[in-house]
Amino acid sequence: MTPTIDFYFDFSSPYGYLASEKIEALAHRFGRTVDWRPILLGVVFRQTGMSPLTQIPVKGDYSRRDFERSARFHNVSFRMPAIFPIASQAPARIVLWARARDPALAAHLVHAFYRAYFVDGLDVSSPDVAADVAGGAGVDAATARAAVDDSAMKDMLKREVDAALAAGVFGSPFIVADGEPFWGLDRFDQLERWLTTGGF
Amino acid sequence: MTPTIDFYFDFSSPYGYLASEKIEALAHRFGRTVDWRPILLGVVFRQTGMSPLTQIPVKGDYSRRDFERSARFHNVSFRMPAIFPIASQAPARIVLWARARDPALAAHLVHAFYRAYFVDGLDVSSPDVAADVAGGAGVDAATARAAVDDSAMKDMLKREVDAALAAGVFGSPFIVADGEPFWGLDRFDQLERWLTTGGF
Repeated sequence: MTPTIDFYFDFSSPYGYLASEKIEALAHRFGRTVDWRPILLGVVFRQTGMSPLTQIPVKGDYSRRDFERSARFHNVSFRMPAIFPIASQAPARIVLWARARDPALAAHLVHAFYRAYFVDGLDVSSPDVAADVAGGAGVDAATARAAVDDSAMKDMLKREVDAALAAGVFGSPFIVADGEPFWGLDRFDQLERWLTTGGF
Repeated sequence: MTPTIDFYFDFSSPYGYLASEKIEALAHRFGRTVDWRPILLGVVFRQTGMSPLTQIPVKGDYSRRDFERSARFHNVSFRMPAIFPIASQAPARIVLWARARDPALAAHLVHAFYRAYFVDGLDVSSPDVAADVAGGAGVDAATARAAVDDSAMKDMLKREVDAALAAGVFGSPFIVADGEPFWGLDRFDQLERWLTTGGF
Protein backbone atom coordinates (compact mmCIF):
# COMPACT_ATOMS: atom_id res chain seq x y z
CA MET A 1 0.00 0.00 0.00
CA THR A 2 1.32 3.43 -0.90
CA PRO A 3 1.99 5.40 2.28
CA THR A 4 -0.17 8.40 3.05
CA ILE A 5 1.10 11.95 3.42
CA ASP A 6 0.55 13.31 6.92
CA PHE A 7 -0.80 16.84 6.80
CA TYR A 8 -0.74 18.48 10.25
CA PHE A 9 -2.61 21.76 10.51
CA ASP A 10 -4.49 24.16 12.77
CA PHE A 11 -7.82 25.58 11.61
CA SER A 12 -6.64 29.03 12.66
CA SER A 13 -3.57 28.92 10.39
CA PRO A 14 -3.72 30.99 7.17
CA TYR A 15 -0.80 29.10 5.63
CA GLY A 16 -2.43 25.85 6.71
CA TYR A 17 -5.53 26.89 4.79
CA LEU A 18 -3.61 27.85 1.66
CA ALA A 19 -1.69 24.56 1.75
CA SER A 20 -4.91 22.59 2.31
CA GLU A 21 -6.06 23.83 -1.09
CA LYS A 22 -2.90 22.48 -2.76
CA ILE A 23 -1.85 19.27 -1.01
CA GLU A 24 -4.37 16.89 -2.59
CA ALA A 25 -3.40 17.74 -6.17
CA LEU A 26 0.25 17.22 -5.29
CA ALA A 27 -0.41 13.95 -3.44
CA HIS A 28 -2.62 12.68 -6.27
CA ARG A 29 0.18 13.13 -8.81
CA PHE A 30 2.20 10.61 -6.82
CA GLY A 31 -0.69 8.22 -6.16
CA ARG A 32 -0.75 9.24 -2.50
CA THR A 33 -3.62 10.09 -0.20
CA VAL A 34 -3.61 12.77 2.48
CA ASP A 35 -4.10 11.99 6.16
CA TRP A 36 -5.65 15.16 7.62
CA ARG A 37 -4.34 15.65 11.15
CA PRO A 38 -5.76 18.66 12.98
CA ILE A 39 -3.65 19.97 15.87
CA LEU A 40 -3.78 22.87 18.32
CA LEU A 41 -1.01 25.37 17.66
CA GLY A 42 -1.62 27.02 21.03
CA VAL A 43 -0.53 23.84 22.80
CA VAL A 44 2.42 23.44 20.44
CA PHE A 45 3.51 27.06 20.94
CA ARG A 46 3.58 26.53 24.70
CA GLN A 47 6.20 23.83 24.12
CA THR A 48 8.32 25.92 21.78
CA GLY A 49 7.88 29.39 23.26
CA MET A 50 6.56 30.68 19.95
CA SER A 51 3.67 33.12 19.40
CA PRO A 52 0.99 33.58 16.76
CA LEU A 53 2.63 35.30 13.76
CA THR A 54 0.41 38.34 13.80
CA GLN A 55 1.28 39.06 17.44
CA ILE A 56 5.04 39.34 16.86
CA PRO A 57 6.26 42.96 16.58
CA VAL A 58 7.23 44.00 13.02
CA LYS A 59 6.79 40.42 11.75
CA GLY A 60 3.06 40.66 12.38
CA ASP A 61 2.53 43.43 9.82
CA TYR A 62 4.52 41.55 7.23
CA SER A 63 2.63 38.35 7.95
CA ARG A 64 -0.74 39.89 7.27
CA ARG A 65 0.57 41.28 3.98
CA ASP A 66 2.13 37.94 3.11
CA PHE A 67 -1.09 35.99 3.82
CA GLU A 68 -2.94 38.10 1.25
CA ARG A 69 -0.12 38.11 -1.28
CA SER A 70 0.50 34.37 -0.96
CA ALA A 71 -3.20 33.71 -1.49
CA ARG A 72 -3.12 35.77 -4.70
CA PHE A 73 0.12 34.09 -5.79
CA HIS A 74 -1.37 30.62 -5.32
CA ASN A 75 -4.74 31.67 -6.70
CA VAL A 76 -6.70 30.76 -3.56
CA SER A 77 -9.66 32.78 -2.29
CA PHE A 78 -8.77 34.39 1.04
CA ARG A 79 -10.14 37.07 3.31
CA MET A 80 -8.38 37.76 6.60
CA PRO A 81 -10.95 37.00 9.32
CA ALA A 82 -11.94 39.81 11.69
CA ILE A 83 -11.38 37.51 14.67
CA PHE A 84 -7.88 36.03 14.56
CA PRO A 85 -6.49 33.77 15.82
CA ILE A 86 -9.25 31.50 17.08
CA ALA A 87 -9.33 28.37 19.23
CA SER A 88 -9.83 25.44 16.92
CA GLN A 89 -10.98 22.61 19.19
CA ALA A 90 -14.53 22.49 17.77
CA PRO A 91 -13.72 21.88 14.09
CA ALA A 92 -10.73 19.73 15.02
CA ARG A 93 -12.88 17.36 17.09
CA ILE A 94 -15.50 17.10 14.35
CA VAL A 95 -12.82 16.26 11.81
CA LEU A 96 -11.35 13.60 14.10
CA TRP A 97 -14.82 12.14 14.53
CA ALA A 98 -15.17 11.97 10.73
CA ARG A 99 -11.62 10.72 10.18
CA ALA A 100 -12.29 7.66 12.33
CA ARG A 101 -15.25 6.81 10.08
CA ASP A 102 -14.41 7.95 6.55
CA PRO A 103 -11.20 9.70 5.46
CA ALA A 104 -12.95 11.25 2.46
CA LEU A 105 -15.54 12.82 4.76
CA ALA A 106 -12.75 14.21 6.94
CA ALA A 107 -11.16 15.82 3.87
CA HIS A 108 -14.50 17.27 2.83
CA LEU A 109 -14.98 18.77 6.30
CA VAL A 110 -11.46 20.21 6.44
CA HIS A 111 -12.18 22.22 3.31
CA ALA A 112 -15.60 23.25 4.57
CA PHE A 113 -14.26 24.55 7.91
CA TYR A 114 -11.23 26.27 6.40
CA ARG A 115 -13.30 28.03 3.74
CA ALA A 116 -15.97 28.98 6.28
CA TYR A 117 -13.29 30.76 8.32
CA PHE A 118 -10.90 32.12 5.69
CA VAL A 119 -13.37 32.93 2.92
CA ASP A 120 -16.73 33.50 4.61
CA GLY A 121 -15.36 34.87 7.89
CA LEU A 122 -17.40 32.54 10.11
CA ASP A 123 -16.08 32.05 13.62
CA VAL A 124 -15.74 28.27 13.55
CA SER A 125 -14.32 28.28 17.09
CA SER A 126 -17.98 28.32 18.18
CA PRO A 127 -19.27 24.75 18.57
CA ASP A 128 -22.66 25.81 17.19
CA VAL A 129 -21.15 27.52 14.16
CA ALA A 130 -18.86 24.54 13.55
CA ALA A 131 -21.86 22.18 13.73
CA ASP A 132 -23.76 24.39 11.27
CA VAL A 133 -20.84 24.33 8.85
CA ALA A 134 -20.65 20.54 9.17
CA GLY A 135 -24.39 20.43 8.53
CA GLY A 136 -23.92 22.48 5.38
CA ALA A 137 -21.29 19.97 4.30
CA GLY A 138 -23.74 17.09 4.54
CA VAL A 139 -23.06 15.79 8.05
CA ASP A 140 -25.88 15.57 10.57
CA ALA A 141 -25.43 18.84 12.48
CA ALA A 142 -26.59 17.43 15.82
CA THR A 143 -24.12 14.57 15.54
CA ALA A 144 -21.33 17.02 14.71
CA ARG A 145 -22.34 19.25 17.61
CA ALA A 146 -22.24 16.25 19.97
CA ALA A 147 -18.73 15.33 18.78
CA VAL A 148 -17.43 18.69 20.06
CA ASP A 149 -18.40 17.80 23.64
CA ASP A 150 -17.65 14.08 23.36
CA SER A 151 -14.96 13.21 25.90
CA ALA A 152 -13.65 10.54 23.52
CA MET A 153 -13.05 13.22 20.87
CA LYS A 154 -11.46 15.51 23.46
CA ASP A 155 -9.08 12.71 24.43
CA MET A 156 -8.40 11.86 20.80
CA LEU A 157 -7.44 15.46 20.02
CA LYS A 158 -5.12 15.57 23.02
CA ARG A 159 -3.46 12.36 21.86
CA GLU A 160 -3.14 13.74 18.33
CA VAL A 161 -1.43 16.90 19.59
CA ASP A 162 0.92 14.84 21.74
CA ALA A 163 1.68 12.60 18.77
CA ALA A 164 2.36 15.63 16.60
CA LEU A 165 4.78 17.07 19.14
CA ALA A 166 6.49 13.69 19.40
CA ALA A 167 6.82 13.69 15.60
CA GLY A 168 8.57 17.09 15.73
CA VAL A 169 5.65 19.20 14.54
CA PHE A 170 5.98 22.85 15.60
CA GLY A 171 3.89 24.76 13.07
CA SER A 172 1.10 24.65 10.49
CA PRO A 173 1.04 23.35 7.85
CA PHE A 174 3.53 20.61 8.65
CA ILE A 175 3.81 17.70 6.27
CA VAL A 176 5.53 14.39 6.87
CA ALA A 177 6.10 12.18 3.82
CA ASP A 178 8.04 8.92 4.05
CA GLY A 179 9.44 10.12 7.38
CA GLU A 180 10.73 13.42 6.00
CA PRO A 181 9.34 16.64 7.57
CA PHE A 182 8.37 19.72 5.55
CA TRP A 183 7.19 22.90 7.26
CA GLY A 184 5.07 25.29 5.24
CA LEU A 185 3.48 25.67 1.86
CA ASP A 186 6.79 27.17 0.77
CA ARG A 187 8.41 23.73 1.11
CA PHE A 188 6.04 22.13 -1.39
CA ASP A 189 8.77 22.48 -4.03
CA GLN A 190 11.09 20.35 -1.89
CA LEU A 191 8.25 17.97 -0.98
CA GLU A 192 7.52 17.49 -4.67
CA ARG A 193 11.13 16.70 -5.47
CA TRP A 194 11.31 14.33 -2.49
CA LEU A 195 8.26 12.42 -3.72
CA THR A 196 9.72 12.34 -7.23
CA THR A 197 13.20 11.15 -6.33
CA GLY A 198 12.73 9.40 -2.98
CA GLY A 199 15.11 11.84 -1.33
CA PHE A 200 17.88 14.25 -2.28
CA MET B 1 17.74 54.51 -13.55
CA THR B 2 16.42 51.07 -12.70
CA PRO B 3 15.94 50.80 -8.95
CA THR B 4 18.17 48.44 -7.01
CA ILE B 5 16.96 45.47 -5.02
CA ASP B 6 17.69 45.84 -1.30
CA PHE B 7 19.08 42.61 0.14
CA TYR B 8 19.20 42.71 3.95
CA PHE B 9 21.12 39.88 5.58
CA ASP B 10 23.14 38.76 8.57
CA PHE B 11 26.41 36.92 8.03
CA SER B 12 25.33 34.34 10.60
CA SER B 13 22.15 33.45 8.68
CA PRO B 14 22.17 30.14 6.72
CA TYR B 15 19.16 31.16 4.63
CA GLY B 16 20.81 34.52 4.03
CA TYR B 17 23.83 32.70 2.67
CA LEU B 18 21.76 30.44 0.40
CA ALA B 19 19.82 33.44 -0.91
CA SER B 20 23.04 35.41 -1.46
CA GLU B 21 24.04 32.75 -3.98
CA LYS B 22 20.79 33.23 -5.92
CA ILE B 23 19.79 36.89 -5.78
CA GLU B 24 22.21 38.27 -8.38
CA ALA B 25 21.08 35.91 -11.14
CA LEU B 26 17.46 36.82 -10.43
CA ALA B 27 18.18 40.55 -10.30
CA HIS B 28 20.23 40.38 -13.49
CA ARG B 29 17.32 38.85 -15.42
CA PHE B 30 15.37 42.03 -14.70
CA GLY B 31 18.25 44.43 -15.31
CA ARG B 32 18.51 45.17 -11.60
CA THR B 33 21.50 45.42 -9.30
CA VAL B 34 21.64 44.25 -5.69
CA ASP B 35 22.29 46.61 -2.79
CA TRP B 36 23.93 44.43 -0.13
CA ARG B 37 22.82 45.60 3.29
CA PRO B 38 24.36 43.74 6.23
CA ILE B 39 22.39 43.91 9.49
CA LEU B 40 22.68 42.43 12.98
CA LEU B 41 19.91 39.93 13.65
CA GLY B 42 20.69 39.98 17.38
CA VAL B 43 19.65 43.64 17.56
CA VAL B 44 16.58 42.96 15.42
CA PHE B 45 15.56 39.97 17.55
CA ARG B 46 15.67 42.15 20.68
CA GLN B 47 13.01 44.33 19.04
CA THR B 48 10.80 41.44 18.00
CA GLY B 49 11.34 39.02 20.88
CA MET B 50 12.51 36.34 18.44
CA SER B 51 15.39 33.87 18.93
CA PRO B 52 17.95 32.24 16.66
CA LEU B 53 16.20 29.36 14.86
CA THR B 54 18.45 26.65 16.17
CA GLN B 55 17.76 27.66 19.77
CA ILE B 56 13.97 27.21 19.55
CA PRO B 57 12.80 23.87 20.99
CA VAL B 58 11.67 21.33 18.35
CA LYS B 59 12.00 23.94 15.57
CA GLY B 60 15.77 23.99 16.08
CA ASP B 61 16.20 20.35 15.02
CA TYR B 62 14.04 20.86 11.96
CA SER B 63 15.94 24.02 11.04
CA ARG B 64 19.30 22.29 11.00
CA ARG B 65 17.85 19.57 8.77
CA ASP B 66 16.22 22.19 6.54
CA PHE B 67 19.44 24.21 6.14
CA GLU B 68 21.20 21.14 4.71
CA ARG B 69 18.25 20.00 2.60
CA SER B 70 17.60 23.49 1.21
CA ALA B 71 21.27 23.79 0.27
CA ARG B 72 21.06 20.51 -1.65
CA PHE B 73 17.76 21.54 -3.23
CA HIS B 74 19.22 24.83 -4.44
CA ASN B 75 22.55 23.23 -5.35
CA VAL B 76 24.63 25.44 -3.07
CA SER B 77 27.68 24.18 -1.15
CA PHE B 78 26.96 24.27 2.57
CA ARG B 79 28.46 22.89 5.74
CA MET B 80 26.87 23.79 9.07
CA PRO B 81 29.57 25.67 11.02
CA ALA B 82 30.69 24.21 14.36
CA ILE B 83 30.24 27.61 15.99
CA PHE B 84 26.73 28.94 15.38
CA PRO B 85 25.36 31.55 15.54
CA ILE B 86 28.18 34.10 15.53
CA ALA B 87 28.32 37.87 16.01
CA SER B 88 28.70 39.44 12.60
CA GLN B 89 29.92 42.98 13.28
CA ALA B 90 33.39 42.41 11.80
CA PRO B 91 32.40 41.28 8.29
CA ALA B 92 29.43 43.66 8.30
CA ARG B 93 31.64 46.70 8.95
CA ILE B 94 34.14 45.65 6.29
CA VAL B 95 31.32 45.27 3.77
CA LEU B 96 29.92 48.70 4.67
CA TRP B 97 33.40 50.16 4.23
CA ALA B 98 33.59 48.60 0.75
CA ARG B 99 30.00 49.48 -0.15
CA ALA B 100 30.72 53.19 0.34
CA ARG B 101 33.55 52.88 -2.19
CA ASP B 102 32.56 50.28 -4.76
CA PRO B 103 29.33 48.25 -4.80
CA ALA B 104 30.95 45.49 -6.84
CA LEU B 105 33.66 45.11 -4.20
CA ALA B 106 30.99 44.88 -1.50
CA ALA B 107 29.28 42.08 -3.44
CA HIS B 108 32.58 40.28 -3.86
CA LEU B 109 33.26 40.51 -0.11
CA VAL B 110 29.75 39.33 0.83
CA HIS B 111 30.34 36.11 -1.09
CA ALA B 112 33.84 35.73 0.35
CA PHE B 113 32.65 36.09 3.96
CA TYR B 114 29.59 33.91 3.55
CA ARG B 115 31.56 31.10 1.87
CA ALA B 116 34.34 31.40 4.44
CA TYR B 117 31.78 30.75 7.19
CA PHE B 118 29.28 28.37 5.58
CA VAL B 119 31.64 26.37 3.37
CA ASP B 120 35.08 26.60 4.97
CA GLY B 121 33.88 26.87 8.58
CA LEU B 122 36.01 29.92 9.41
CA ASP B 123 34.83 31.97 12.38
CA VAL B 124 34.45 35.31 10.61
CA SER B 125 33.21 36.92 13.83
CA SER B 126 36.90 37.34 14.66
CA PRO B 127 38.19 40.68 13.31
CA ASP B 128 41.51 39.08 12.40
CA VAL B 129 39.87 36.20 10.56
CA ALA B 130 37.53 38.61 8.76
CA ALA B 131 40.52 40.77 7.72
CA ASP B 132 42.32 37.66 6.45
CA VAL B 133 39.28 36.64 4.40
CA ALA B 134 39.06 40.17 2.97
CA GLY B 135 42.78 39.94 2.18
CA GLY B 136 42.19 36.68 0.33
CA ALA B 137 39.47 38.45 -1.66
CA GLY B 138 41.89 41.10 -2.87
CA VAL B 139 41.37 43.85 -0.29
CA ASP B 140 44.32 45.16 1.73
CA ALA B 141 43.98 43.13 4.92
CA ALA B 142 45.30 45.89 7.21
CA THR B 143 42.76 48.35 5.80
CA ALA B 144 39.97 45.81 6.28
CA ARG B 145 41.13 45.13 9.83
CA ALA B 146 41.11 48.87 10.58
CA ALA B 147 37.54 49.18 9.26
CA VAL B 148 36.35 46.80 11.97
CA ASP B 149 37.48 49.19 14.73
CA ASP B 150 36.66 52.38 12.83
CA SER B 151 34.08 54.36 14.81
CA ALA B 152 32.63 55.67 11.56
CA MET B 153 31.93 52.08 10.44
CA LYS B 154 30.49 51.24 13.86
CA ASP B 155 28.13 54.19 13.58
CA MET B 156 27.25 53.32 9.99
CA LEU B 157 26.32 49.76 10.97
CA LYS B 158 24.13 51.03 13.81
CA ARG B 159 22.37 53.40 11.40
CA GLU B 160 21.92 50.58 8.90
CA VAL B 161 20.31 48.35 11.52
CA ASP B 162 18.03 51.20 12.61
CA ALA B 163 17.09 51.86 9.00
CA ALA B 164 16.36 48.18 8.44
CA LEU B 165 14.09 48.07 11.49
CA ALA B 166 12.34 51.21 10.26
CA ALA B 167 11.84 49.50 6.88
CA GLY B 168 10.13 46.55 8.61
CA VAL B 169 13.03 44.11 8.39
CA PHE B 170 12.80 41.34 11.00
CA GLY B 171 14.77 38.45 9.52
CA SER B 172 17.43 37.34 7.04
CA PRO B 173 17.37 37.31 4.11
CA PHE B 174 14.89 40.14 3.69
CA ILE B 175 14.46 41.65 0.26
CA VAL B 176 12.72 44.91 -0.63
CA ALA B 177 12.01 45.50 -4.31
CA ASP B 178 10.02 48.52 -5.49
CA GLY B 179 8.79 48.99 -1.93
CA GLU B 180 7.49 45.43 -1.60
CA PRO B 181 8.98 43.26 1.19
CA PHE B 182 9.88 39.59 0.75
CA TRP B 183 11.18 37.52 3.65
CA GLY B 184 13.24 34.46 2.85
CA LEU B 185 14.69 32.57 -0.08
CA ASP B 186 11.34 30.78 -0.21
CA ARG B 187 9.69 34.01 -1.39
CA PHE B 188 11.93 34.27 -4.45
CA ASP B 189 9.08 32.79 -6.52
CA GLN B 190 6.84 35.67 -5.47
CA LEU B 191 9.69 38.20 -5.88
CA GLU B 192 10.24 36.94 -9.42
CA ARG B 193 6.58 37.32 -10.32
CA TRP B 194 6.51 40.78 -8.73
CA LEU B 195 9.48 41.90 -10.83
CA THR B 196 7.85 40.39 -13.92
CA THR B 197 4.42 41.90 -13.50
CA GLY B 198 5.03 44.97 -11.34
CA GLY B 199 2.74 43.57 -8.64
CA PHE B 200 -0.02 41.01 -8.28
